[in-house]
Amino acid sequence: MTTQELIHQIKTKKSFLCIGLDVDLNKIPKHLLKEKDPIFTFNKAIIDATHHLCVAYKPNIAFYEAYGLEGWRSLEKTINYLNKTHPKIFSIADAKRGDIGNTSTMYAKAFFDDMGFDSVTVAPYMGKDSVEPFLAFQDKHTILLALTSNPGAFDFQTQIVGKQELYKQVLETSKSWKYSKNLMYVIGATKASYLKEIRQIIPDNFLLVPGIGAQGGNLQDVCKFGLNKNIGLLVNSSRGIIYASSESDFANVAAQKAKELQSQMEAELIKI
Amino acid sequence: MTTQELIHQIKTKKSFLCIGLDVDLNKIPKHLLKEKDPIFTFNKAIIDATHHLCVAYKPNIAFYEAYGLEGWRSLEKTINYLNKTHPKIFSIADAKRGDIGNTSTMYAKAFFDDMGFDSVTVAPYMGKDSVEPFLAFQDKHTILLALTSNPGAFDFQTQIVGKQELYKQVLETSKSWKYSKNLMYVIGATKASYLKEIRQIIPDNFLLVPGIGAQGGNLQDVCKFGLNKNIGLLVNSSRGIIYASSESDFANVAAQKAKELQSQMEAELIKI
Repeated sequence: MTTQELIHQIKTKKSFLCIGLDVDLNKIPKHLLKEKDPIFTFNKAIIDATHHLCVAYKPNIAFYEAYGLEGWRSLEKTINYLNKTHPKIFSIADAKRGDIGNTSTMYAKAFFDDMGFDSVTVAPYMGKDSVEPFLAFQDKHTILLALTSNPGAFDFQTQIVGKQELYKQVLETSKSWKYSKNLMYVIGATKASYLKEIRQIIPDNFLLVPGIGAQGGNLQDVCKFGLNKNIGLLVNSSRGIIYASSESDFANVAAQKAKELQSQMEAELIKI
Repeated sequence: MTTQELIHQIKTKKSFLCIGLDVDLNKIPKHLLKEKDPIFTFNKAIIDATHHLCVAYKPNIAFYEAYGLEGWRSLEKTINYLNKTHPKIFSIADAKRGDIGNTSTMYAKAFFDDMGFDSVTVAPYMGKDSVEPFLAFQDKHTILLALTSNPGAFDFQTQIVGKQELYKQVLETSKSWKYSKNLMYVIGATKASYLKEIRQIIPDNFLLVPGIGAQGGNLQDVCKFGLNKNIGLLVNSSRGIIYASSESDFANVAAQKAKELQSQMEAELIKI
């Protein structure tokens, strides 16, 4: 999917909501456990109930990998179902991969070509030649970790490197990489005020913002500093939507929670 | 496996060789492609031919993931075969994972509990709470990326943070994490002279050293600066061993190449 198509979808749906499909068998409604594939059944119900309210879905790959082959099968079924029924929805493999060149190419091939994701999250620690193999894929997007929403973000990401924090160095340096137009960045919502300075370094790129809801981030603050002329934001919510109810009404309640966020987003979009 | 058992194996076999099982269907002998599971057939032949010469095997997970469900099945068969036939060999899932706390726990569970690996490689960028979930597993080992062997290592890892390079900051900071005794570190062999300073920060931990052979590192230099009183080194070779021949004699030639490295290691071990 091109960035222009994503922007068009956001404007059409009046939403820049991304729903995180972090499916934990201990948290999904109990009645689903008797299904042949509880994870896919859960995802399908969530997608069916919320697809008109969001522009992206983000399965966190760890949650699938933890269930071995069965988990990978559930992931494949989920992305295949999504691509078939809603091909205009942006898909994010939240995998946080990154390895030396030829290995990163293998990962990129797996997520982009074989599974058909539009984007994948990648860690920056190994530098340029660990990320560029992802960037080389046309109309695919590499979402680089910059400032994450967990407490450990302060261990290294906010340490001063030269004149600025490491995460700013990551933003700055990655701009010079080949096909850097295919870069988006993960910026945690728990530090929304940081977005002002971040936008000075990368005014145009899309930001994937986790940490709204369960992790305490505030949507209005994120929008105030993060929106740009092409919107430039995808805001993720996972647990706050998909686990809002653990009863048989879970999909409807998820849709209500998604609708609340979409309405707030619509109000923010009117301002720009 | 405990660290003591690993050290005992190294002393018994006079080898601290780790063989990287980075299986690429474009590189393995053509005659294997007609097998039902070429990747597992290749790995089994390599393990059968080299198990007495090495103390560890390290499948790079990307190479399996790139082949989807089939690839994961080949990986499972490989680790199951290894654990069944050679339970005293140390296994490394070279996955370079790392995510927020509950997600890291999912990854740790997948590699340690479900698949039965002894260790997994983890990226440090997200800090303490992304790594500690791995460290919490008893007699399992978390191999943290510190200084990698690729050119991109100079993008961020060697940048000065405060008074020292980022990778030294990673070493220093990680020492304070809970169960840090379960930490090993990835240190690229292409910068063997750095090992002297690294050993001042982490005198006791095991180092996993890639980059010998194909990537240009030198074993003698690595040993000079990297060996400690408990050996403290695992040196990896992948392509230099497993792809030394692309003919039907590939396993024998792999064993010859492994034997050459083992002999060099034996000579180095005598010195300490």
